Amino acid sequence: MTHQDAEPLFHDVEFRVRYAETDQMGVVYHTNYLVWCEVGRTDFIRARGMSYADMERSGVGLAVSELTARFHAAARYDDAVRVRTTLAEVRSRGITFDYLITDVATGRRLVTARTALVSIDPQGRPTALPASVRALFVRE
Amino acid sequence: MTHQDAEPLFHDVEFRVRYAETDQMGVVYHTNYLVWCEVGRTDFIRARGMSYADMERSGVGLAVSELTARFHAAARYDDAVRVRTTLAEVRSRGITFDYLITDVATGRRLVTARTALVSIDPQGRPTALPASVRALFVRE
Amino acid sequence: MTHQDAEPLFHDVEFRVRYAETDQMGVVYHTNYLVWCEVGRTDFIRARGMSYADMERSGVGLAVSELTARFHAAARYDDAVRVRTTLAEVRSRGITFDYLITDVATGRRLVTARTALVSIDPQGRPTALPASVRALFVRE
Amino acid sequence: MTHQDAEPLFHDVEFRVRYAETDQMGVVYHTNYLVWCEVGRTDFIRARGMSYADMERSGVGLAVSELTARFHAAARYDDAVRVRTTLAEVRSRGITFDYLITDVATGRRLVTARTALVSIDPQGRPTALPASVRALFVRE
Repeated sequence: MTHQDAEPLFHDVEFRVRYAETDQMGVVYHTNYLVWCEVGRTDFIRARGMSYADMERSGVGLAVSELTARFHAAARYDDAVRVRTTLAEVRSRGITFDYLITDVATGRRLVTARTALVSIDPQGRPTALPASVRALFVRE
Repeated sequence: MTHQDAEPLFHDVEFRVRYAETDQMGVVYHTNYLVWCEVGRTDFIRARGMSYADMERSGVGLAVSELTARFHAAARYDDAVRVRTTLAEVRSRGITFDYLITDVATGRRLVTARTALVSIDPQGRPTALPASVRALFVRE
Repeated sequence: MTHQDAEPLFHDVEFRVRYAETDQMGVVYHTNYLVWCEVGRTDFIRARGMSYADMERSGVGLAVSELTARFHAAARYDDAVRVRTTLAEVRSRGITFDYLITDVATGRRLVTARTALVSIDPQGRPTALPASVRALFVRE
Repeated sequence: MTHQDAEPLFHDVEFRVRYAETDQMGVVYHTNYLVWCEVGRTDFIRARGMSYADMERSGVGLAVSELTARFHAAARYDDAVRVRTTLAEVRSRGITFDYLITDVATGRRLVTARTALVSIDPQGRPTALPASVRALFVRE
């Protein structure tokens, strides 16, 4: 679901932990939480009315330029997890999202993260975020 | 090393198992052995005098069309493993490789696999294997 | 959904392709389809009334011993895909599943695969499939 | 190599980018750089005289609790990359490492990152870093 009527903008997506995502500690390998953040922002963008796939086809990509994450507790195989993606900032050349990953059954906070993304052209050069994309995220 | 003077053509590459490649059984997650096969054939092709990266830039890719694998024993984190890639067949539109993954310390056989690859153009359509690529693999 | 009233037993699960699952050819990297097969069988087992996670906690794991796959067409980022998992065979020490991965929008067949799994104890040794597990798959 | 005679302690490891590590932007998917950081610290610890695998077998694991990364430039398939892992801090219950990932051919800086790790027991609870492990990192 997407929360559209009050600030801040956020979107939730839920799925189960895959076996392939665990490691020999018996929990999710830490970089996989960051893959889930990407699943969260893809779903957020789609819920705003544009697919990120279409956005790339139109010639604008979003590349992660900075990432911070704190790992509070571990998810395990087959756990249902929720990724809440919140719009933190829209800039002329990029977007920043915050993420909160929780365990669906217990509500326990697992990971908090933030990624700054920059808009790039097909050659990987920074470019202005198109107005059509900005409009998805900025309310008049 | 690449064995060039006798049939069949083969090439060995060695590396250590990454933590990210394990799963909660405490061993390597099975699909990662197949990623290693790709590492093996990339190294094989480079050893024959062409990089697969250059090959793609020249407009011809190799896509896996069939794959079979048998998992005999498990590799563990930080084990040194060896991937022996052997040329099985060169066809007008593809190449087949065999793989033998072993534990370097014990020589134990871990996985045997075979992949058939088809040559494709940038749009993903089957295309003839260029003569320059065939020449890498076929001895006169 | 799980088809329970007629042979053969099968189960469907659907999800969208993640960005992380693509490669520089612009399509899904081939080993990721095999990760999806694991998602399919996990969901199949849960739909039969047991979680594979519980099964492992009870001391019996299922390890892939053989795998075959044919790659017919490619999935792309954000495509909705369906994995149909079908029970192919139950043996005293293992289970074999077949998989059919299709594009949800077009119905196009993407990948067909088969995995043979052997039941193992916590030390990785082959063991008999427990009656409780067999009962999930074999109809009286 | 490991630089042992002057502060700060660091260690370099080099390898080539795998095809599986790229995404449809044609460059390395961002979380894979963080997997490489783990390869870097594993190699650092081994170079200090202990394998992290042995450390886990002795009952002490290191779990990532915080991670920050900046992505300066992209690595591509088959590029040779170097991960320089530097010891940033040793605490009673953890270790912090810094990472600098560069392109071997050009020396270009690709990614800088930092991970804080906490020492945990087999149940995942924070525990003191054993003296034998501390001794690997702290010079008398």
